[in-house]
Amino acid sequence: MDQLQTIDDQRAWSRAAHMAGKRIGFVPTMGALHEGHISLIAKARAKSDVVVASVFVNPTQFDNPEDFAKYPITLEDDLAKLKAAGVDAVFLPTKEAMFPDGYCTFVELVGPLTDKMCGAARPGHFRGVATVVTKLFNIVQPDVAVFGEKDLQQVLIINRLAKDLDIPVEIIVGDTLREPDGLAMSSRNRRLSPASRQKALDLTKGLELARRAYKQGESTSLKLCEFVYNELLIHEGVEVDYCDVVSLRGFEEKDIADDTCFIAAAAFVDGVRLIDHVHLAGPAIPVAIDE
Amino acid sequence: MDQLQTIDDQRAWSRAAHMAGKRIGFVPTMGALHEGHISLIAKARAKSDVVVASVFVNPTQFDNPEDFAKYPITLEDDLAKLKAAGVDAVFLPTKEAMFPDGYCTFVELVGPLTDKMCGAARPGHFRGVATVVTKLFNIVQPDVAVFGEKDLQQVLIINRLAKDLDIPVEIIVGDTLREPDGLAMSSRNRRLSPASRQKALDLTKGLELARRAYKQGESTSLKLCEFVYNELLIHEGVEVDYCDVVSLRGFEEKDIADDTCFIAAAAFVDGVRLIDHVHLAGPAIPVAIDE
Repeated sequence: MDQLQTIDDQRAWSRAAHMAGKRIGFVPTMGALHEGHISLIAKARAKSDVVVASVFVNPTQFDNPEDFAKYPITLEDDLAKLKAAGVDAVFLPTKEAMFPDGYCTFVELVGPLTDKMCGAARPGHFRGVATVVTKLFNIVQPDVAVFGEKDLQQVLIINRLAKDLDIPVEIIVGDTLREPDGLAMSSRNRRLSPASRQKALDLTKGLELARRAYKQGESTSLKLCEFVYNELLIHEGVEVDYCDVVSLRGFEEKDIADDTCFIAAAAFVDGVRLIDHVHLAGPAIPVAIDE
Repeated sequence: MDQLQTIDDQRAWSRAAHMAGKRIGFVPTMGALHEGHISLIAKARAKSDVVVASVFVNPTQFDNPEDFAKYPITLEDDLAKLKAAGVDAVFLPTKEAMFPDGYCTFVELVGPLTDKMCGAARPGHFRGVATVVTKLFNIVQPDVAVFGEKDLQQVLIINRLAKDLDIPVEIIVGDTLREPDGLAMSSRNRRLSPASRQKALDLTKGLELARRAYKQGESTSLKLCEFVYNELLIHEGVEVDYCDVVSLRGFEEKDIADDTCFIAAAAFVDGVRLIDHVHLAGPAIPVAIDE
């Protein structure tokens, strides 16, 4: 596995791959890799000849400097996992190379895709994501890039920006992977104590309860969101950042849910921000629920 | 000369050129071509194997819909000029292809490069420029692109965004071309009546008078700008949009001018917005001045 530290080195690597007629698959990450990331790499490999992963904790997407400072860094472990997953090259730029002094250009989306959920809760977050992903696409020049469904709003934004800015890359979505008990895999989970982890699982439970209620005829979004609030707000140290019912058609918030909708929530669990969602008409989240 | 109407066609053309080992030079235009544009094409040719020009009146860079509606369209004449200049391909996208319904992604620069001069006077203008140029770069994939020095703030912004977003293109600046009497060439000049054109020339004269005064020891920016105001404000129908002394070092407005500075002004002359500038330590503008 090649380790590329500079933008020029990655660019040269990608140019050589393309000159050899190879399709490049790309999985950008912020490190602290888990099985979810590895599943994205498998997905990239299936659609390309060589796979590039990047590990870069992007400072511009953190609205909260403390959150950035606490983001888990596990580079040696990440490199071992990427190598085992058969990644061909890993791009490891420095913050100074990506955002040097005087840096001043940002990619921003306006409208429904960014004005709600994590867009409303984390000012500047998606601007940072859109900017770094545009840069990474321009450097790595992938033919296909894979993002996790867990960050649904993010993947829709990236798909939109690639189309809007005419970046010739196909965006593919990989399924959310979950722990055996149902908790969505996330790099942030490793910051949860065992007690916090138990509370976190109630985010998943609340969403699954809402999905079941929808299946049984409840379509008032406020009522559906109540399942999430009821599960989470019984805990000390838990704060719900948002809970929304949103349609994939137009990415509109809906007062009355329909089959195009998902329910998504973000919560701070003892200071760790977690997100999850479920499609109301989709399959169940495999989580134990005492009824 | 190939005429490419769709994004896919231009992309395929550029890919074929690159596969054949050719360097692509690019001159984006809004049409209404004059000798200034043609000089940029010559400059692109000198640095590349094939030259692409684009003609696209970008709606997103007009802060004023009336200005957009009045922008001169002379496509047949433009195509003849491009062909005569030896352009290999001209890209002619539609507005609908470039900015389809639901379009929502913009490239924006923050800070000194965009907060003054045309950036302050035309809200959203440079966002529109940065966005369309990013799109055109992604479609045409040029190795080198040429922009006119007349739009100095624009070319500095494009140079910065290409670096910041890691777009692998070299930005080259072509000299401002002037009419025999000194007026900077601009597509907008053709909207000037003979009487308006005479007034417009006083923008050039005012800048040259400021430059001469600087050479003779005047370094107070307000005094230098007075030369421009004095030339222009004697005319009915003329409104000065801005006049600023700005250093190329940090793109800072200066109260006291030095050799790193240029003086730039924008004025509405009978409703037509014109811009021009001169480097205070640079060569004279060849314009007749009665002293």
